[in-house]
Amino acid sequence: MHILIIGAAGMLGRKLTAAVARAPARPVTALTLADTVAVAAPDGFAGRVETPAVDLAAPGSAARLIAGRPDVVVHLAAVVSGQAETDFDLGYAVNLDGTRALLDAIREAGDAYRPRVVFASSLAVFGPPFPDRVPDDFAPQPRTSYGTQKVMAELLINDYSRRGLIDGVSLRLPTICIRPGRPNAAASGFFSGILREPLAGRTAVLPVPDTVRHWHASPRSAVGFFLHATHMDTGPLGHRRALNMPGLSASVAEQIEALRRVAGQAAVDRIKPAPDPLVAEIVGGWASDYEASRARALGFTAETSFDDIINVHIEDELDGRPFAATEAAQ
Amino acid sequence: MHILIIGAAGMLGRKLTAAVARAPARPVTALTLADTVAVAAPDGFAGRVETPAVDLAAPGSAARLIAGRPDVVVHLAAVVSGQAETDFDLGYAVNLDGTRALLDAIREAGDAYRPRVVFASSLAVFGPPFPDRVPDDFAPQPRTSYGTQKVMAELLINDYSRRGLIDGVSLRLPTICIRPGRPNAAASGFFSGILREPLAGRTAVLPVPDTVRHWHASPRSAVGFFLHATHMDTGPLGHRRALNMPGLSASVAEQIEALRRVAGQAAVDRIKPAPDPLVAEIVGGWASDYEASRARALGFTAETSFDDIINVHIEDELDGRPFAATEAAQ
Repeated sequence: MHILIIGAAGMLGRKLTAAVARAPARPVTALTLADTVAVAAPDGFAGRVETPAVDLAAPGSAARLIAGRPDVVVHLAAVVSGQAETDFDLGYAVNLDGTRALLDAIREAGDAYRPRVVFASSLAVFGPPFPDRVPDDFAPQPRTSYGTQKVMAELLINDYSRRGLIDGVSLRLPTICIRPGRPNAAASGFFSGILREPLAGRTAVLPVPDTVRHWHASPRSAVGFFLHATHMDTGPLGHRRALNMPGLSASVAEQIEALRRVAGQAAVDRIKPAPDPLVAEIVGGWASDYEASRARALGFTAETSFDDIINVHIEDELDGRPFAATEAAQ
Repeated sequence: MHILIIGAAGMLGRKLTAAVARAPARPVTALTLADTVAVAAPDGFAGRVETPAVDLAAPGSAARLIAGRPDVVVHLAAVVSGQAETDFDLGYAVNLDGTRALLDAIREAGDAYRPRVVFASSLAVFGPPFPDRVPDDFAPQPRTSYGTQKVMAELLINDYSRRGLIDGVSLRLPTICIRPGRPNAAASGFFSGILREPLAGRTAVLPVPDTVRHWHASPRSAVGFFLHATHMDTGPLGHRRALNMPGLSASVAEQIEALRRVAGQAAVDRIKPAPDPLVAEIVGGWASDYEASRARALGFTAETSFDDIINVHIEDELDGRPFAATEAAQ
């Protein structure tokens, strides 16, 4: 099996590549790892690897990526929410036109070529007002250009799949927590920051009340979603190929209690409340819980406790040793 | 006020043009009537009229149409459902790219130009399974490329409106009944045919059981929707600018009973049952009733009895005299 990952240089792209290379559930004989920058070939993968540096939105790029007829295309490439809001043209060019160029390159390939296409969508396709728990058939009403572009791409994937041109699945991802790396300017950044930074011995700012409730899944779960989608039976999807991915609904207070259980009071003491009305307002417009029963029935799974989400981070990012534990051992 | 109608040569375009020219609720000083063919200037209109023949999907066309800075743009131009299904490229080029080109031409006009844009969408944005009565917040799940293109255009109109680039409204039209003119190949054609043809003294074929229920509005109501949308207050729409238009839910049996009341048994006798399983299957995948409460609350109105729908046709298309009445007068 030949897998093409577009957006392979991103956080999820790198983790997915490593997971595919490390322990493929089925024989992966070739990997094409595409991004706007050339990515490194994964360690320990015996198959053929190509690492083209291409801009999906540029003319001819999509056809070039499809030329090797990958059996599975995982499309992670995107301009993120904040940038799509500030750069109107770039957001539409990459998130909408880039995706459409990919689908059209497949359509124009001929030879009855019909790959599995797994598309990274987002729960940002939805907008307020929200019920306490968002059902699977809730109508997308995006409040950002990013969310608009994602739901438009989902609609293309449904239509191209219905016409038998691709075999598509769109995964609407929860907020990924704990996101590794440095703090960023995203309004959602603190959900990871209040755990990641204390676990690394650094202080973190909490800009919202601890009653705020949100929907989370670990990077490891997200990788699992994509792996599952590469080989799941798409028959039960019918014509509705966009799925709300499972996650864990937790309040900030519950996140903090989990941190206390896993890493102790010293870690919790590194969280510094600093109310930010703007962040509180943005986050207040997000849903706090999703049913995701359709995806669960199809075999997608995520963490069921925040302790697990924290432990995934400690195992995958901190070699099993959070800062507090290191201190205690000294 | 300067109104641009794109798709002015079509059935609704011609009726809307006539209505605007005849009795403008507010002073219309200029009309631009665009279509792929040049249309005739309306009778009795004292203002300035331009009738450009342009293909909206062709480069530069949208900018040319927008050059005169119309205050209101009514966008009716579309490749219809059946053609969008058989001609993939044409459907996307006109229904999606054409609409986007229009919106981008407005965006690029500068000068804080922000016209009202009224977009002819369709209830084809929805797909089965349907509840008995489709609520306003039912999630669009189109089953055709046409429906896909319409909901994608709606999403653009929402996003461009949210960003303050246009002041948009999307009207999801019911099936128009009684559609004037000759019988056509559309699967929905019989809903009009079983009334229009007998009213003209001709026989009509009924391909489905008379228990089939559907959602109808007259051409006159549809024109009223567009007129209302040109000057309604869009504030109450918030960020959700697509509206399910009101209509009348009626079974074929109820249509036929109305025909009997209005035009007599002789007219009903001209309907010839000729079951067509393919048509029955297509129509069976359509919804039979819609709440449309949001649109009604905003001032959109439609007929409340099929007698009225038939009488609208007799008044507007038959000079007040159906064939049966003519016969009786001889």
